Amino acid sequence: MVKTDEKSINSDNAAIFALPSYLKQRKSLVDKALDNSLSIKKPETIYQAMRYSLLAGGKRLRPILCLATCELTGGSIDMAMPTACALEMIHTMSLIHDDLPAMDNDDYRRGKLTNHKVYGEDIAILAGDGLLAYAFEYVAANTYDIPAERIVRVIACLGRTVGAAGLVGGQVLDLESEGKPDISSQTLTFIHTHKTGALLEASVVSGAILAGASAEDITKLSQYAQNIGLAFQIIDDILDITATDEELGKTAGKDLQAQKATYPSLWGIEKSQTHAQKLIDDAIAQLATYEEKAEPLRAIANYIIIRNH
Amino acid sequence: MVKTDEKSINSDNAAIFALPSYLKQRKSLVDKALDNSLSIKKPETIYQAMRYSLLAGGKRLRPILCLATCELTGGSIDMAMPTACALEMIHTMSLIHDDLPAMDNDDYRRGKLTNHKVYGEDIAILAGDGLLAYAFEYVAANTYDIPAERIVRVIACLGRTVGAAGLVGGQVLDLESEGKPDISSQTLTFIHTHKTGALLEASVVSGAILAGASAEDITKLSQYAQNIGLAFQIIDDILDITATDEELGKTAGKDLQAQKATYPSLWGIEKSQTHAQKLIDDAIAQLATYEEKAEPLRAIANYIIIRNH
Repeated sequence: MVKTDEKSINSDNAAIFALPSYLKQRKSLVDKALDNSLSIKKPETIYQAMRYSLLAGGKRLRPILCLATCELTGGSIDMAMPTACALEMIHTMSLIHDDLPAMDNDDYRRGKLTNHKVYGEDIAILAGDGLLAYAFEYVAANTYDIPAERIVRVIACLGRTVGAAGLVGGQVLDLESEGKPDISSQTLTFIHTHKTGALLEASVVSGAILAGASAEDITKLSQYAQNIGLAFQIIDDILDITATDEELGKTAGKDLQAQKATYPSLWGIEKSQTHAQKLIDDAIAQLATYEEKAEPLRAIANYIIIRNH
Repeated sequence: MVKTDEKSINSDNAAIFALPSYLKQRKSLVDKALDNSLSIKKPETIYQAMRYSLLAGGKRLRPILCLATCELTGGSIDMAMPTACALEMIHTMSLIHDDLPAMDNDDYRRGKLTNHKVYGEDIAILAGDGLLAYAFEYVAANTYDIPAERIVRVIACLGRTVGAAGLVGGQVLDLESEGKPDISSQTLTFIHTHKTGALLEASVVSGAILAGASAEDITKLSQYAQNIGLAFQIIDDILDITATDEELGKTAGKDLQAQKATYPSLWGIEKSQTHAQKLIDDAIAQLATYEEKAEPLRAIANYIIIRNH
């Protein structure tokens, strides 16, 4: 029996996964959980600043991936929701700090003023710190009905993902590469596998760990995530050239202005697009054994290549 | 049998705990563990920046308290060392971010240039983020031979301590109170119980959790820590007035310059000293049932009141 809210029928009568309604429903669950995760206490300013960026919209791709792999490998949404929220807290923290004047110096993010433009630099730095610390607390204090060993593994995974071996390391090499348009594609890939890829990988892997997935499953899902992560970044670089400010919800053309090396600047737009497509095809190939159950992950992979923001 | 390296004999022939050699030996263990905790990888800048501040000296009071309460409640140094290191990583991160130009704008810390003066603001922000994330990873990935439930509890405790309900919240109220010399002693105490007290309390409590201490033990030790934390801050405020730059290893007289409310500015030096002494007496009273085993904690409490830096 095909559920009409998640499937539609194409001309060959085969079931096609209806991604938009799936994403919408999952985003709504995640938004609600995030809203509930953080209430305002004293001193109010810091909680308001944390909530301002945490609830500023966004696709919630990382939480959605975490929930999806947890379900795929036999777990439930409830099991994974605290970790899903933590992933978005970490992602938000990295955006707040990246936007600071001492870093990328951005005034807009997701179509809204950046955190430091509203609350000042000092509070923005502390809001990021607060979200990062709360991410770990939230997983540790709110994950129920799961062996504690799995929670400890998830926390080690999240920590590695944010730190110098992940996000932070990627951002450092990114800063060091600014104004050097001649950097190699190896360096560019290091930046992106750390700055973007690591957290997408952690999203997928943490969902699987929580569900108690096998090492083999985790390897496949990890490969899937690395591939979509890099494809995501290549498409981001292309959109920075081809999309408008309005479509992006942030300033377009920043990479060119900052003389940043990007995949299109190294390879041209067409070759970049071909490479992104190959990465997505390889990602989808990792999902073969899961058959129909992996439809959400396949559809998300395909969505990355066709998005326009 | 009294060990000569930890005890000395006073004129009444009673054993007196030899704090200096105890602190020296524990600091040496902690320094070695911290040095081993973080090796330099690519991109080197960020690891160097993290190590610069993490290994910049300091009394290692938080790790030493964690090891001491773990031993006091039946655990071992090995059990607690990863958490002890994490506490120092968190403490270091809070110092790096507090020293930033957007915050307290300090050029010197522990007699050395602050992180952002050496590495720049961007790297200093990221070094703090990296240390914070690594603290959680380090506990989760390196704590052995302990039920995972205890590790999860410790991580929840550390997260709460750093976040808006702890360090970050204290720092926000501190920033908001700057230039307002008329704030109440209630607000001042909120600032310090969050900014300094919370991490000292977490140091003591986490050691006890790792050892599997009873709820009753944890309550007593938590009270001990809150008291010495507040006393520590009162003495800090007094030293800012009475000590030299050289004794402090940082700029003295900053509070007066920044028109910060402090305990001496509210109560005068003498009343502040009396209150600190009362807090220490109450802290020591919490340790009565542990008899001789709590000598290190008693000696540390007494040391806080007589230190000159």
